[in-house]
Amino acid sequence: MDAAEFRRRGREMVDYVADYLENIEQRPVYPDVEPGYLRSLIPTEAPLEPDNYDDIIKDVERIIMPGVTHWQSPYFFAYFPAASSYPAMLADMLCGAIGCIGFSWAASPACTELETVMLDWLGKMLKLPEHFIAGTHGHGGGVIQSTASEATLMSLLAARCKAVRRVQETNPERLEAEVLSKLVAYSSEQFCATLGTTSSCAFDHITELGPICNEENMWMHIDAAYAGSAFICPEFRPLLNGIEFADSFNFNPHKWLLINFDCSTMWVKKRQDIIGAFKVEPLYLKHENQESGRHWQIPLGRRFRSLKMWFVFRLYGIEGLQAHIRKQVVLAKEFESLVRADKRFEICAEVVMGLVCFRLKGSNELNQLLLKRITESRTIHLVPCQLSGLFVLRFAVCSRVTDSGHVQHAWRQITQLSCEE
Amino acid sequence: MDAAEFRRRGREMVDYVADYLENIEQRPVYPDVEPGYLRSLIPTEAPLEPDNYDDIIKDVERIIMPGVTHWQSPYFFAYFPAASSYPAMLADMLCGAIGCIGFSWAASPACTELETVMLDWLGKMLKLPEHFIAGTHGHGGGVIQSTASEATLMSLLAARCKAVRRVQETNPERLEAEVLSKLVAYSSEQFCATLGTTSSCAFDHITELGPICNEENMWMHIDAAYAGSAFICPEFRPLLNGIEFADSFNFNPHKWLLINFDCSTMWVKKRQDIIGAFKVEPLYLKHENQESGRHWQIPLGRRFRSLKMWFVFRLYGIEGLQAHIRKQVVLAKEFESLVRADKRFEICAEVVMGLVCFRLKGSNELNQLLLKRITESRTIHLVPCQLSGLFVLRFAVCSRVTDSGHVQHAWRQITQLSCEE
Repeated sequence: MDAAEFRRRGREMVDYVADYLENIEQRPVYPDVEPGYLRSLIPTEAPLEPDNYDDIIKDVERIIMPGVTHWQSPYFFAYFPAASSYPAMLADMLCGAIGCIGFSWAASPACTELETVMLDWLGKMLKLPEHFIAGTHGHGGGVIQSTASEATLMSLLAARCKAVRRVQETNPERLEAEVLSKLVAYSSEQFCATLGTTSSCAFDHITELGPICNEENMWMHIDAAYAGSAFICPEFRPLLNGIEFADSFNFNPHKWLLINFDCSTMWVKKRQDIIGAFKVEPLYLKHENQESGRHWQIPLGRRFRSLKMWFVFRLYGIEGLQAHIRKQVVLAKEFESLVRADKRFEICAEVVMGLVCFRLKGSNELNQLLLKRITESRTIHLVPCQLSGLFVLRFAVCSRVTDSGHVQHAWRQITQLSCEE
Repeated sequence: MDAAEFRRRGREMVDYVADYLENIEQRPVYPDVEPGYLRSLIPTEAPLEPDNYDDIIKDVERIIMPGVTHWQSPYFFAYFPAASSYPAMLADMLCGAIGCIGFSWAASPACTELETVMLDWLGKMLKLPEHFIAGTHGHGGGVIQSTASEATLMSLLAARCKAVRRVQETNPERLEAEVLSKLVAYSSEQFCATLGTTSSCAFDHITELGPICNEENMWMHIDAAYAGSAFICPEFRPLLNGIEFADSFNFNPHKWLLINFDCSTMWVKKRQDIIGAFKVEPLYLKHENQESGRHWQIPLGRRFRSLKMWFVFRLYGIEGLQAHIRKQVVLAKEFESLVRADKRFEICAEVVMGLVCFRLKGSNELNQLLLKRITESRTIHLVPCQLSGLFVLRFAVCSRVTDSGHVQHAWRQITQLSCEE
């Protein structure tokens, strides 16, 4: 495929993408396939000679789409949102074309530098303490990780490295393995200090945990994977109070801030802690401006992901992003009201953001049966969680285009499928 | 931005991408900027209200492009290739539109299943032993990781978990921490058993290492990040002999197989080893077809990356991909001949694939000076490596569009910039 054909096929793909997203609610949100469905539709080996492009596009509808769970459908209320917006997709096209691998400053200065500045922009939108902002004279800064799991693992490894060093400074004779075997990591059921858990969007009291961690010289990492995006709204920002005690913090703009996956943003109080833990310096990565490079993550290679942040922040503006968050919270409150107005149901956790945890009053089996019916209806999609032993349904407002009509429709579906014991 | 505007802006972006790649050799391959250049060109905070789209596109040329190292330029001979092709970019657009997060089978069956089948296709292209192929009745299979670093870390963690279990099976009273402190990982200078090192594309003798690992019941992981793609050519496949001894194996199609970053493919001999090490099962991830899900990686969320493999394999065909590999190897051999014909220079490592390690006969300082001049010329881009204490220049054929003219031009540049002691 040459540039001329790419121009033609690229335009067709742009239209396919726009058509898909404009008409997505006409597709069943949850697929009607059994495990292994795809293997039977596809050859067992790659073709020796090129296939025809039109056949591939036909196969997208024939083979792929029947097995897709449509996360961008306004009837998708499962898990948490997977952010998606047109500006982010445009930036991703540009990222693919540049095709640089930003593992050092020299590997593409714009890639490293735009990331640093975008993390500052976002940090300021969240009103993070100044020590997290690289552009100030502090010692911290931000980095894009792929996922919250990686950010958490990074913070664990950095904390471990720092603890070993501290012990060895005063006890140089102690072996690393010996020190390691004595280290302790404290976590909750959800692992680290969490703002907005996946199950119920619950919040740890970081203003209570933080001072203890600081007094005891423990690394404190805070994960706000879903809820973090909401902190750009002043009315939600108090939930982040206590962040000043944290050594590291992350959340996922790829969940709720309209920046397509993957983009998990992480900040550290002291750059040196994290740089020291991951320094890799073979000669082929050395360059004149070595100090501007950053090895703050497990992967060596990295895409030019900050382009997505730049496009989205500029094309929505802070107010546009705040409006998106607020609209989804209002929709969750609307759903909560519907649940509360029906005596057969109960709300199982405070509705703080875009997630409503609810259930039929009655046994777990009753609720499992309801969810099974919902899943099989394929018109809306939800997943469950477990809260204090109870089987609970999660209703997360996910799609960028979900509106009141979709929420009302979802509630009608749920009540129609409800049964009694 | 609505669908209608996306159609317009998407077409413009397709043209921008095609223009960029068609005219890339007119841009200096290495940027002329100093660390911090970008921060001064950009506001210190995100805008409150949306910016104008046309201004953003102007800023791409004004702010971003001057700081880009153009990895896709035919004059880029640094590091290793960052794969790029139009079919992969089209598939990435589709991946962005679907926007699913494939962390379980139910989260998008097509995402999990196409990945399994594509890893089988690729495994068969490499003639991997049958136990690595999921579609046979073996116990293994493949998975897409983000990078080789993650694949290596995965194999370390799986090996560690397996070793601890083995010890505890016969000595149930031993504590995990105690067992862990006794474990040993053997590695070379390049870490694990490597086929095609980054410095010089050197090959470990896995037919010698393999039997020892098997006899001693040690997990053997093989990394062929760059060289792995070449094993689809029968003439290079013998270098993979010994793979039958390995417990896990990975290489990066995002380097040399025309599939845009990120796409690091990894196979394991026994699925159970890796599933057991990473099992995560909160209720919100449970579903009826749980056994079809796969947690074979550190991130929970994952993009629909197998679409890129599917588009590239079908639109190039195996023969098209082989032709790409062979063309780049021929170009490396052409460069090697040029070096060998000039008595001032020497070849520093056997040229097996697309990498030529060479230097001026003389001191390291002389070669450092040559590289400095090359870098400052900005017409071609190379990075160095260190081999047996010598400062060596690496010439890696990288861009999909590099041809003989570019190689000849590069050699003229290098000889013109060469100096004598």
